[in-house]
Amino acid sequence: METVSTSRSFEGVQGVYRHASEATGCDMTFAVFVPPQAAKGPVPVLWYLSGLTCTHQNVMDKGEYRRHAAEHGIAIVCPDTSPRGADIPDEKDNWQFGSGAGFYLDATEAPFARNYRMATYIAEELPALVAAQFPVDMTRQGIFGHSMGGHGAITLALKNPGRFKSVSAFAPIAQPSTAGWSRPAFEKYLGADEAAWRAYDSTLLIEDGHRVDELLVDQGTADSFLNDGLRPWLLEEACRKAGIALTLNMREGYDHSYFFISTFMGDHIRWHADRL
Amino acid sequence: METVSTSRSFEGVQGVYRHASEATGCDMTFAVFVPPQAAKGPVPVLWYLSGLTCTHQNVMDKGEYRRHAAEHGIAIVCPDTSPRGADIPDEKDNWQFGSGAGFYLDATEAPFARNYRMATYIAEELPALVAAQFPVDMTRQGIFGHSMGGHGAITLALKNPGRFKSVSAFAPIAQPSTAGWSRPAFEKYLGADEAAWRAYDSTLLIEDGHRVDELLVDQGTADSFLNDGLRPWLLEEACRKAGIALTLNMREGYDHSYFFISTFMGDHIRWHADRL
Repeated sequence: METVSTSRSFEGVQGVYRHASEATGCDMTFAVFVPPQAAKGPVPVLWYLSGLTCTHQNVMDKGEYRRHAAEHGIAIVCPDTSPRGADIPDEKDNWQFGSGAGFYLDATEAPFARNYRMATYIAEELPALVAAQFPVDMTRQGIFGHSMGGHGAITLALKNPGRFKSVSAFAPIAQPSTAGWSRPAFEKYLGADEAAWRAYDSTLLIEDGHRVDELLVDQGTADSFLNDGLRPWLLEEACRKAGIALTLNMREGYDHSYFFISTFMGDHIRWHADRL
Repeated sequence: METVSTSRSFEGVQGVYRHASEATGCDMTFAVFVPPQAAKGPVPVLWYLSGLTCTHQNVMDKGEYRRHAAEHGIAIVCPDTSPRGADIPDEKDNWQFGSGAGFYLDATEAPFARNYRMATYIAEELPALVAAQFPVDMTRQGIFGHSMGGHGAITLALKNPGRFKSVSAFAPIAQPSTAGWSRPAFEKYLGADEAAWRAYDSTLLIEDGHRVDELLVDQGTADSFLNDGLRPWLLEEACRKAGIALTLNMREGYDHSYFFISTFMGDHIRWHADRL
């Protein structure tokens, strides 16, 4: 693992790191904020998964998480959203597929199956690296994310029972397997058989019996993706049927941007802190 | 004035606006955060001047000011750092002159004197526009900034006595007329006669009798520009001689980035709120 940069911030350290990933077959970059409490012993770790088009950097710059992470003594890990590099299959002019659009799944279709293995990367490879390199207590993990990363956070929590003590999301894609902006990606990554898509769809995973105890979601009412792409009511319905305690906050007038995310970042980190 | 974008954030509104500027002879873009308290009546206004290479956007994205502005009920205005556009004289490969490097002065030398009139723009034209277009109380203004913008904030406060009830800076350029990274710009904008440069130099303005009551400065000890470009001890010495109450916080391990600025943004906005 190579250190790209470190800066002192809120008495902790915001770092950016790079490593050769076996899962994705390329160099991957990620950000870690280590709070000041880590000087006294291992701290809980909270994973933040970003949305379409983002790298590790967007939320690091605009998410305003450090103040709250330092207050509660939690490390925040911000991975990239896809494999990167000139040799990675891509559709340069398509923001909903390829670079920046890994959808936190393991692709099965050529030529994408070789590199687009973000589920394995986020669930296995990166946690092992973080556990080895940072002063974190891996028995206390939480996960959250935004949009495509909200989908990623919820699906990873559903599929790894017991791993995460807390899960939340900002404006998650509730049912990517039926949403117009994600269906084409799912087909390219996973093939035409939609049965395989269920393993990467929050609402369908719940329908298939996967569970988390509780879930916090914030969603802006002025979000331009609300009705076609995000559709939190599908998650609400799935949670209701499954008996999952969903707290869904519809935030009047908020959009899909980091102006929205940063506003409610403190609430989410407090939610995780209470459970970590 | 044209609205470029607005987003709800921290129950207020973060907007970006554009207007044809007479002072700079081009379209200028700026950001304004209006806090929720403005719904009940005019709020104080705090000017944030950015550093070299920045536009209005850097601090808007990375400064983490909205939480504190909303808490204290203060509007934050973030202007650009120079005139912009294809017709503006520039040195494209020089980050210390031209675009992004207006130094908050009024140039007197051709061909720069036509457009590089940021002192007039920030002190006269933009305040008139902001007063007319936003729910602000112009009898309660404060000003702060970073690096070149710290220089701008302090010089504007010194030269406009009574205008600003509070002034502070993150890592300001204390004496730009003698610093290597600003001397060439001063010469191109203001000519070879260094007497004219004194009007845009914090320490020399103080030496020449200009005053503010008090001044808050935060400076990171790991700032790579500390010894050659910033030199807060020159400001300390000038303030000491002039009897200006300077609070200079040397922040151990902090660098010149927004990771530093955002850490102490809350302290600065509280400082201004107490005086507005």
